[in-house]
Amino acid sequence: MTSAELEQYVDGVAREAKAASRELAAAPGRQKAEWLLRTAALLRTRSDEIVDRNQQDLAQAPEYGLNSAAIDRLRLTTERLEAIAQAVEQINLLPEPVGEIIDSAIRPNGLRVSRVRVPLGVVFFIYESRPNVTIDAAALCVKSGNAVILRGGKEAYHSNEALHSILRDALADVGLPTGVVQFVQTTDRDAVGHFLKKRDLIDVTIPRGGKSLIERVASEATMPVIKHFDGVCHVYVDRDADLPMAQRITVNSKCQRPGVCNAAETLLVHRDVAGMFLPEVGAELSAAGVELRCCSESLSLIPGAKAATEEDYRTEYLDLILSIKVVDDWESAVRHINEFGSHHTDTIVTNDLHVSERFTTAVDSAAVMVNASTRFNDGGEFGLGAEIGISTDKIHARGPCGLRELTGYKYVVHGEGQIKE
Amino acid sequence: MTSAELEQYVDGVAREAKAASRELAAAPGRQKAEWLLRTAALLRTRSDEIVDRNQQDLAQAPEYGLNSAAIDRLRLTTERLEAIAQAVEQINLLPEPVGEIIDSAIRPNGLRVSRVRVPLGVVFFIYESRPNVTIDAAALCVKSGNAVILRGGKEAYHSNEALHSILRDALADVGLPTGVVQFVQTTDRDAVGHFLKKRDLIDVTIPRGGKSLIERVASEATMPVIKHFDGVCHVYVDRDADLPMAQRITVNSKCQRPGVCNAAETLLVHRDVAGMFLPEVGAELSAAGVELRCCSESLSLIPGAKAATEEDYRTEYLDLILSIKVVDDWESAVRHINEFGSHHTDTIVTNDLHVSERFTTAVDSAAVMVNASTRFNDGGEFGLGAEIGISTDKIHARGPCGLRELTGYKYVVHGEGQIKE
Repeated sequence: MTSAELEQYVDGVAREAKAASRELAAAPGRQKAEWLLRTAALLRTRSDEIVDRNQQDLAQAPEYGLNSAAIDRLRLTTERLEAIAQAVEQINLLPEPVGEIIDSAIRPNGLRVSRVRVPLGVVFFIYESRPNVTIDAAALCVKSGNAVILRGGKEAYHSNEALHSILRDALADVGLPTGVVQFVQTTDRDAVGHFLKKRDLIDVTIPRGGKSLIERVASEATMPVIKHFDGVCHVYVDRDADLPMAQRITVNSKCQRPGVCNAAETLLVHRDVAGMFLPEVGAELSAAGVELRCCSESLSLIPGAKAATEEDYRTEYLDLILSIKVVDDWESAVRHINEFGSHHTDTIVTNDLHVSERFTTAVDSAAVMVNASTRFNDGGEFGLGAEIGISTDKIHARGPCGLRELTGYKYVVHGEGQIKE
Repeated sequence: MTSAELEQYVDGVAREAKAASRELAAAPGRQKAEWLLRTAALLRTRSDEIVDRNQQDLAQAPEYGLNSAAIDRLRLTTERLEAIAQAVEQINLLPEPVGEIIDSAIRPNGLRVSRVRVPLGVVFFIYESRPNVTIDAAALCVKSGNAVILRGGKEAYHSNEALHSILRDALADVGLPTGVVQFVQTTDRDAVGHFLKKRDLIDVTIPRGGKSLIERVASEATMPVIKHFDGVCHVYVDRDADLPMAQRITVNSKCQRPGVCNAAETLLVHRDVAGMFLPEVGAELSAAGVELRCCSESLSLIPGAKAATEEDYRTEYLDLILSIKVVDDWESAVRHINEFGSHHTDTIVTNDLHVSERFTTAVDSAAVMVNASTRFNDGGEFGLGAEIGISTDKIHARGPCGLRELTGYKYVVHGEGQIKE
């Protein structure tokens, strides 16, 4: 496509999405349920076709420099497609979000003023790597009444295209416009830039991927963006902590799955318990293969640890590495977290009620936990059913984003002829 | 200031605001109440000083090309300051928004997962003209726990500076950091551009003013913006309308205060009642001095009306002008509103339950009304107590923005040592 053709293509996709979103917003929940179930059925009956197309991506994977872990994540099998189909059926069981009356008041003049939950409209969803996200994201967007434009990574292009053909055919089968779920049929990077200019047609952009993608989208987008930046998460062990519990939580927060955003990257310890706590937790972490990077005070308490730099305390390792720092008190811990952290997930281990209350108030993060592993910040664990991402923004949605976070509201006002005096 | 000095000044203001916002977020509601009451008291005891400084702005007003209506809006008197002080006392009486538990669930593993209402952090508020907005906006931001950076119009610079000195002195008097409410001490346009780059320090920008200001902010801002674009509002008179009620609502929506965003700009009428309705309402509107711009069908029904162009149906007149169009049915009305309107406020007059339900679902606007004047879309009328603006965005806040819309939430999770399996 020439540049002008690309721009025209993008405009056409966005216009079709907007028109389809209006039809979908007024569609009954029953029709969305039919689509979800039809999608699940087609994922099963057409699994061979998808696995075939996935082979094309797998064959090209070495060209894109994918390592074996990334290639494994890219792979689709009949079993994995069955799991994806079941996830769609789970989303179908979640309560209908659209039309819920959030709150309502009768005003002195008799007007009934309600806030009613409505879809956002058109979601532009940009994602990297795993093709199962194609189905998850479409299911969540449509269940919440939104049209979605899917822009997947080039490494999964053929898989995503095949999965999209299932989503589209299911739309046609249940009588919904196929503009409800569209797939960007080019890997041209400029296409994204053109979509990000369509403020009048796209209501929100959700990028899901590495930091550079999110930075690019945040700076180029002309419409609101729900962003997910990195997770520099902390465990703070207070003076009044149950130390065996603190050790379990620290090890779990770091080691249970170190490559994800809600894994801990820094351990802060109150000076009064550092001498008791750090040698024991240090030994267990070292035995688990964790490299420990310590402040001068903690360094002397953990044999074999390295010295930390200031940069370490700002780093999302996503690996078996942990920064450690001894702090004077809970206020120092809060200051460290708010300055060095990424406002994602932070936990305190304490039995002091006053301190836990102050900590949860003062730490400016999407999720603040008391006596629990950072690993619990997740849509499934929080009861959202499924999530399209985890927001590190402060407006609209914060933390895991599920169906509710893909909606907004409108005021609906019922009168009996009231006019303004 | 040189360009480098300006950048440094902006950085200093934003950093001070961020630091102050952390202190304010943890401040008890009692301290915020003391500040509001102290502000009201100082507005009364120091009214002479403010009126004096306001004279400087009034003297310069002709230079800025302000007409007599604009000069009147700029004027501060002891009486007007009394009204502003009373508005602050009213805001003090509103319920405390920070710390409210929005919802909460006990998960199967025993975790208690709550969403707790929290301040957004730092608000950058850019506004034009009326100086009373300085006090209103600061009171709403601080009551909702946010630090605010005030950037007023150059026409009101001296008045705003004097009002800010009251806000700042009241902060010092009650022991809050003066960084909580700051005033941009330069009228240099470039200052705004520098602030709009401070994504790490400013959490949300709220522009309130003309379309060009809002366009500029929306395109330059790197942080979320709560926007208020124009109001092209509609009254749709359905086949099943009570016609005397429809006439009252039409006249009120257009004429009660034509210069504001929630005044009606277009009247849509179902063909079946056009012949009965339009001559009567046309006569009343014409008598009230309203210029009527009509489609070919309505033109023949209203003596003295003009022909409308397509551009008329997209225009926010803010004046005694009304576009009129005859439509086939409620679906045509909805299509017209969604295409030509600005998604602000639209009303239907009907007694048909099915049509009213479909209309409120299908019209994609911040406020959709049934049998009520468009003029009711307003924070006061909706029971918000006070508003910092009306949002035409779809995410975070839609419609009037009061205390609640100046907050977000965080997840607070309480456990007893839970770790992820």
